Amino acid sequence: MRTRAAVALEAGKPLEIMDVLLDGPKAGEVLVEIKATGLCHTDEFTRSGDDPEGIFPAILGHEGAGVVVELGEGVTSLEVGDHVIPLYTAECRECEYCLNPKTNLCQKVRATQGQGLLPDGTTRFSMLDGTPIHHYMGCSTFANHTVVPEIALAKVRKDAPFDKICYIGCGVTTGIGAVINTAKVEIGSTGIVFGLGGIGLNVIQGLRLAGADQIVGVDVNDGKAEMARHFGMTDFVNPTKVDGDIVAHLVELTGGGGDYTFDATGNVNVMRQALESAHKGWGESIIIGVAGAGQEIATRPFQLVTGRVWRGTAFGGASGRTDVPKIVDWYMQGKIEIDPMITHNLKLEEINHGFDLMHEGKSIRAVVEF
Amino acid sequence: MRTRAAVALEAGKPLEIMDVLLDGPKAGEVLVEIKATGLCHTDEFTRSGDDPEGIFPAILGHEGAGVVVELGEGVTSLEVGDHVIPLYTAECRECEYCLNPKTNLCQKVRATQGQGLLPDGTTRFSMLDGTPIHHYMGCSTFANHTVVPEIALAKVRKDAPFDKICYIGCGVTTGIGAVINTAKVEIGSTGIVFGLGGIGLNVIQGLRLAGADQIVGVDVNDGKAEMARHFGMTDFVNPTKVDGDIVAHLVELTGGGGDYTFDATGNVNVMRQALESAHKGWGESIIIGVAGAGQEIATRPFQLVTGRVWRGTAFGGASGRTDVPKIVDWYMQGKIEIDPMITHNLKLEEINHGFDLMHEGKSIRAVVEF
Ligand SMILES: NC(=O)c1ccc[n+]([C@@H]2O[C@H](COP(=O)([O-])OP(=O)(O)OC[C@H]3O[C@@H](n4cnc5c(N)ncnc54)[C@H](O)[C@@H]3O)[C@@H](O)[C@H]2O)c1
Ligand SMILES: NC(=O)c1ccc[n+]([C@@H]2O[C@H](COP(=O)([O-])OP(=O)(O)OC[C@H]3O[C@@H](n4cnc5c(N)ncnc54)[C@H](O)[C@@H]3O)[C@@H](O)[C@H]2O)c1
Ligand SMILES: [Zn+2]
Ligand SMILES: [Zn+2]
Ligand SMILES: [Zn+2]
Ligand SMILES: [Zn+2]
Repeated sequence: MRTRAAVALEAGKPLEIMDVLLDGPKAGEVLVEIKATGLCHTDEFTRSGDDPEGIFPAILGHEGAGVVVELGEGVTSLEVGDHVIPLYTAECRECEYCLNPKTNLCQKVRATQGQGLLPDGTTRFSMLDGTPIHHYMGCSTFANHTVVPEIALAKVRKDAPFDKICYIGCGVTTGIGAVINTAKVEIGSTGIVFGLGGIGLNVIQGLRLAGADQIVGVDVNDGKAEMARHFGMTDFVNPTKVDGDIVAHLVELTGGGGDYTFDATGNVNVMRQALESAHKGWGESIIIGVAGAGQEIATRPFQLVTGRVWRGTAFGGASGRTDVPKIVDWYMQGKIEIDPMITHNLKLEEINHGFDLMHEGKSIRAVVEF
Repeated sequence: MRTRAAVALEAGKPLEIMDVLLDGPKAGEVLVEIKATGLCHTDEFTRSGDDPEGIFPAILGHEGAGVVVELGEGVTSLEVGDHVIPLYTAECRECEYCLNPKTNLCQKVRATQGQGLLPDGTTRFSMLDGTPIHHYMGCSTFANHTVVPEIALAKVRKDAPFDKICYIGCGVTTGIGAVINTAKVEIGSTGIVFGLGGIGLNVIQGLRLAGADQIVGVDVNDGKAEMARHFGMTDFVNPTKVDGDIVAHLVELTGGGGDYTFDATGNVNVMRQALESAHKGWGESIIIGVAGAGQEIATRPFQLVTGRVWRGTAFGGASGRTDVPKIVDWYMQGKIEIDPMITHNLKLEEINHGFDLMHEGKSIRAVVEF
């Protein structure tokens, strides 16, 4: 079939809107009509050429929501017409990783996904001239139709709006999951969140949901404070306006440091600040941000020997098929909020403008609707 | 009173054996006759002048066992004649840290202890000419008699031999505790231990006690393998004899990496190897070794984002008054072994020879008996 897509032809170039060819789903695969997709920093990391593992040409996008159109052979867990969110972290429920409750990093389709291919080692997308186009993170939601493995689709309720719940495909789940699944924050805790963008705001609301008493937000941009307050931040700190050491300031402000601290900036120096502003004896620091290629984090081992713990999280530690439908329910029940974070609704033709907004720090989430 | 002690007069100088003056215990303090003391790397770190926070003159030693001789005012938990092990990590059972089950870092006497003083801000030790001599880690076990806060004494059974259980005052508890309290290793786990010295061997026997299936020991010295096998090591790796990358080798050997890995070398490069040879998704790496002043650990944040956890441990996460008597029981019951690790028994006059043995890598533990 033909479908409309934004294609990344080359690293560093704007996406090109064009018709592409899409083969039907093979065994274990599902054809999905994408209704809406968010634009995440990870897409931009690849588009810009900063990602050393980026593959081109490719159809980017990994934060989508849509409807099942056709089932490949042997697909049993979904039906045509089901509403789904594609998962860049699959959940096969049978690999060594899925069977270990300590991790969500299903390995079933990982190797081919990293090569921009579906599990059989081929692509379903191609140019009109037949040139194959790579998949991206197993999702490729910057296309009106895409093919995804069955184990990489979360089935969600049908009354949830696509242009909001697409954000649960990455940002919302990453931020809230970091709090709930990775940090396992207890009621009454103190949290410190570095970076109040699309991820950090969801960490903030995750902390509120988990019953944290003090929720400190740290951002170099004062403009981020108002929205963060709306989502539950109790104290705002702009490090550029603090006299002296930011870590000492945060330790003072929280009466000893955060029980849980989160990096949602991707800056390795901030990751260190986040660790060192965790409470002596028991504070845990969780890295969410993705650092530039080759960059390293560092600290004195004494920071760990005196009881701080350094962790990271991918997709908020969520097992997608199990956890994503629950987060959609929480949104529909009003337990969490998404609407104020969707700051821009775009058409596919305007997608490059969405990346401009991201660079200018003007959007929290721009969403493309088909 | 007069007592006999090995005194560190100056950084980098051998200890001097001399008579010193010791005041009686003040309120909340206890006079202890030390019967035996181990020599630990931390004593040497301070004696040598490598420790930037070292204070002189001081009576070092923090791995002792002895008998209660006199009680200061208000001491209720001990009686004259009780057998005790001094604790460099006190357990007051009422500070914010003692009341938090996630940490053992009691803060009650910490500030003064770090200054080489007892909690009232003075020393009990002095030279015959009246010059004050500092305490060390709140213990000062390189003296035949010492004064220790009540909350820094673990009461242990009377039938346990002093020249063995003194080692529980640091090395044994640090190694076994890192496994049991900090890592909380589950039965069937795979462990990798870097450094098979006095601490590493106790990590090895901790892993055996916890029911680990595979226990890999890593040391640059082949001579360490035999003893480690005795304590439960199943595989030995000498990194200087591995072709290529030690991390890749260990990941291969363990079928994906260690569920738990431990640094017991104090080398920051080894700490990184330990983290990176932990299993993707769930592997935890525990830093036990104490690095040189100012040294830093580093890795790519991706290592944590893909599920590895970086921790540290001090005194094996043990709450001394509660846990140390249990470890003494385990020794007496034959659940753990200590005797083969006490490789040298010395007199106080021979204590400097004990440090030579440590440097030559010839001793695991040298113990001084009074
Ligand atoms: N681990 C995962 O699964 C996962 C998933 C999605 C995104 N991410 C990563 O999360 C990070 C954040 O993404 P986002 O969409 O929220 O980005 P964003 O640009 O919307 O927000 C980043 C925020 O950090 C602030 N900031 C920048 N430098 C700072 C500093 N030195 N101190 C304090 N604040 C600073 C910025 O002002 C901005 O508000 C990115 O690195 C992204 O790649 C990780
Ligand atoms: N965290 C704590 O509470 C605590 C308590 C006591 C001691 N320590 C620290 O634990 C560390 C170990 O103490 P120890 O008494 O066992 O020392 P040790 O010297 O007896 O043992 C160290 C071992 O590491 C080996 N080694 C050295 N470099 C190596 C390398 N690159 N790769 C692999 N092995 C290597 C040595 O051959 C030796 O066998 C020290 O740093 C000590 O200060 C920590
Ligand atoms: Zn994303
Ligand atoms: Zn799986
Ligand atoms: Zn010690
Ligand atoms: Zn205490």
